[in-house]
Amino acid sequence: MNSKLQWLRNTMNSLDLQGIIISNPVNIKYLTNIDAEGILLLTRKDNIFITDARYIEHVHSILTLYDEIIVYDLKDISKDDYENFFLFCENVGFEEYYVTYADYKEMIRKYKINNLVETEHIIEKQRMIKDKDEISNIAKACNITDDCFKHILNYIKPGMTEKQIAKEIDEYYNINAEGVSFDTIVASGENTSKPHAIPTDRKIKEKDIITIDMGCKVNGYCSDMTRTFFVGEVLEEVKEVYDLVLKNQLQTQEDFKDGANTRLLTKMVENDFKLHNYDLVHSLGHGVGLEIHEAPYISYKSDTQLKENMVVTNEPGIYIPGKFGVRIEDTVQITKFGSVSLTNSKKDYIVI
Amino acid sequence: MNSKLQWLRNTMNSLDLQGIIISNPVNIKYLTNIDAEGILLLTRKDNIFITDARYIEHVHSILTLYDEIIVYDLKDISKDDYENFFLFCENVGFEEYYVTYADYKEMIRKYKINNLVETEHIIEKQRMIKDKDEISNIAKACNITDDCFKHILNYIKPGMTEKQIAKEIDEYYNINAEGVSFDTIVASGENTSKPHAIPTDRKIKEKDIITIDMGCKVNGYCSDMTRTFFVGEVLEEVKEVYDLVLKNQLQTQEDFKDGANTRLLTKMVENDFKLHNYDLVHSLGHGVGLEIHEAPYISYKSDTQLKENMVVTNEPGIYIPGKFGVRIEDTVQITKFGSVSLTNSKKDYIVI
Repeated sequence: MNSKLQWLRNTMNSLDLQGIIISNPVNIKYLTNIDAEGILLLTRKDNIFITDARYIEHVHSILTLYDEIIVYDLKDISKDDYENFFLFCENVGFEEYYVTYADYKEMIRKYKINNLVETEHIIEKQRMIKDKDEISNIAKACNITDDCFKHILNYIKPGMTEKQIAKEIDEYYNINAEGVSFDTIVASGENTSKPHAIPTDRKIKEKDIITIDMGCKVNGYCSDMTRTFFVGEVLEEVKEVYDLVLKNQLQTQEDFKDGANTRLLTKMVENDFKLHNYDLVHSLGHGVGLEIHEAPYISYKSDTQLKENMVVTNEPGIYIPGKFGVRIEDTVQITKFGSVSLTNSKKDYIVI
Repeated sequence: MNSKLQWLRNTMNSLDLQGIIISNPVNIKYLTNIDAEGILLLTRKDNIFITDARYIEHVHSILTLYDEIIVYDLKDISKDDYENFFLFCENVGFEEYYVTYADYKEMIRKYKINNLVETEHIIEKQRMIKDKDEISNIAKACNITDDCFKHILNYIKPGMTEKQIAKEIDEYYNINAEGVSFDTIVASGENTSKPHAIPTDRKIKEKDIITIDMGCKVNGYCSDMTRTFFVGEVLEEVKEVYDLVLKNQLQTQEDFKDGANTRLLTKMVENDFKLHNYDLVHSLGHGVGLEIHEAPYISYKSDTQLKENMVVTNEPGIYIPGKFGVRIEDTVQITKFGSVSLTNSKKDYIVI
C-alpha cells in the first residue's frame, strides 16, 4: 500500500474510525493517483474504488498490485454488497465539506451506517504539508510560469487584445505543461481595477498598465503568479500604489516562516494599506497544490499557523474602482526559519 | 421582477415556503442572469444577492432597477443581519443536492432557521423546459457546432495529433462562440474505445477511425454533438457496429416526443444492442441547457417522461475495449408530437 493510504489507515485508527468514504476527487487523486470519477471506500479489510464503465480501462492502467486497491464497476454492485462494505463498523467517516446533504442521507440509507462521522478536513489538512515530490512538481510549474512570463513580455505589443495575450499564455502552458491551473487573467487599463477580471477585446495601448495572473500544472500540481507592469513608461499616478503593494509583498515574504500566524500576517498588510487609505479586499494568500486554492488560507478570517513545507501564495493587491489595480503574487515554500520563493520573476517596475 | 424570479415566488407560495436560499450558481444565473460567486436569498420582502468585493462591480453592471435585487457585500453583513433575513419565516427552502452537509449545519446556525426544508430540485425541474430565448441560444450553439465540424473535416490531415485537432476546435469556438461547453474529445484508432477519451499525441493515420465529441456556448447555453468518421475508407470491421449505432440513434429520434418514457427509450436501445452481443455502457442521453449535463437524464436508472420543449441529447454508443468505438450524438428539441434535431451534421458514413 502506498504511504498516503497507509497514513490514512493510521489516522483512522487514532480517530476510532473502522471505515471511511472519500468522495472528493482531489483527495482520491492525492491518496491513490486515480484521476477519475468514483468513490473510494476504506473498509475494515479492503481499499475499494467504485467507478463506472467510462473509467475502468483508465483506472486499471494507473494502478499496480502494490496499490492494493480493488476496482468495482458501479453496475456490478448489489444492494447487499453496499450493506456489507461497512458491516460491523461502529464509526464510518465521511467528508462533510464535500458531500451534499442529499448524499449524506443517501449514504446512511445505502450502506446502512450506524454512525456517519464528520472527519473535519483530515485529508485536506494533511495535504497542506507537501512532500519532496509534491514540492518538486510545484517548483517545476513555477519555473515554467517564470519562463512563460518572460516569453509574454516579449510577445505583447500595443494593438493586441487581452484575449489574444491570454490565448498565447494558454498555448504556452498547453505545450510546456499540463495546461493552465486556472483561467488566465489578463487585464489592462481600468480593467486592472477588477481583481477577478476576465480577458476582454480591449486593445493594449501605449502607457497602459497590465495585470496578468497565471499558472500551470505539472503532474497535477499548480503554480500561481501575478505581475502588474507597464507599457512604455511607469504611470506617475500608479507609483505610490505599486510601491505600497510591493513593500507589503516583500515584508510578507520576510515574515513567512514556520509558526507565523495567518491572521496576523493579513492584519499587518491591512493596517499598512489602511494607513494610506486603501483596503485589502481579498485574502493575502492561499495554499497551492493539487488545487489552485486550498488550505491554508491567509486572510483575516483564518487563524492558523504556517508550517514547514506548506506552499502558499503571497499576493497583496490594491484596486481603485474605475481607475486601476496593482497585484503582485508569488508561490512560496515555507521553511523552518523563513521561506523560499518558488516564483522568481522580477518584482520591481517592469516596463515593456 | 423578471418572470423567472416571479415564477419562483409563486412556487414558494404553493409550497408554503416563506424564504429560500439558492446556492447553486447555475440556478442563480438562470433566475437572475448573475454570473458571479455568491448566494441568492428570497426573503418575505426582498430578493438579496450576497457576494464579495471581487464581483460587486460586475454584478452592478448586469442588474437593472427592474430586477429588484439588492446586492450586499459579504463584508458588510453583521451577525444580526443574518438572523433578520428570515425572521418570522416558518419554512425556508434550501438546495439539498448542492449544499454540503457542513453548509447545511452552518445555515441553520447563521440564519437561525427553524425549519430548513429540502426543495427537491424545484429549479432544476423548471430548467428542463426551455423557453423561446433558451432554445434559440441552444440552436445557435448547435449551428456553430455544425459549422465547426464542417471546418474540422477539411482541416484534419494524416500526421496531425488528436491534441492538435482538439485545439483547432477550441479556437474555433473561442472565436465564434463563448468557448467550449465541455472538454473536447478527439479520439482516434483504438482510443475511440474509451467513451471518455482525453486527446493524446497520437497521430492520425490512413484508415483510422476518429470520434469527436464537441460543443460550445452561446449566452451561457450549450450544444453537444458526437460523430465517428473515417480516414480514407470505412473499415469493414466497423460497419456492423456503426450501422447498429446509427439505426438505434435514428430509431430513438423517431421515438422522442412529449410523453416518451426515458427508461423505456433506453431499454429499447439496450435490448437491440444485446441482441447483437453489445452493451450500452453509458446513458442514452441527457438534458442540455446552462449545463452540458442536466435533467432529464435518459438512462435505465431514470424513469421520467420527456416533455415539450425539453432539449436533450440522443447518443447511443458501442465500445470494444482495445479495438474501437462508435458514438453518434445530436442535440434535440422535444415537441408535442415528435422532435426536432438542432444538430444537422450528416450521420451516414463520413470519410475524409
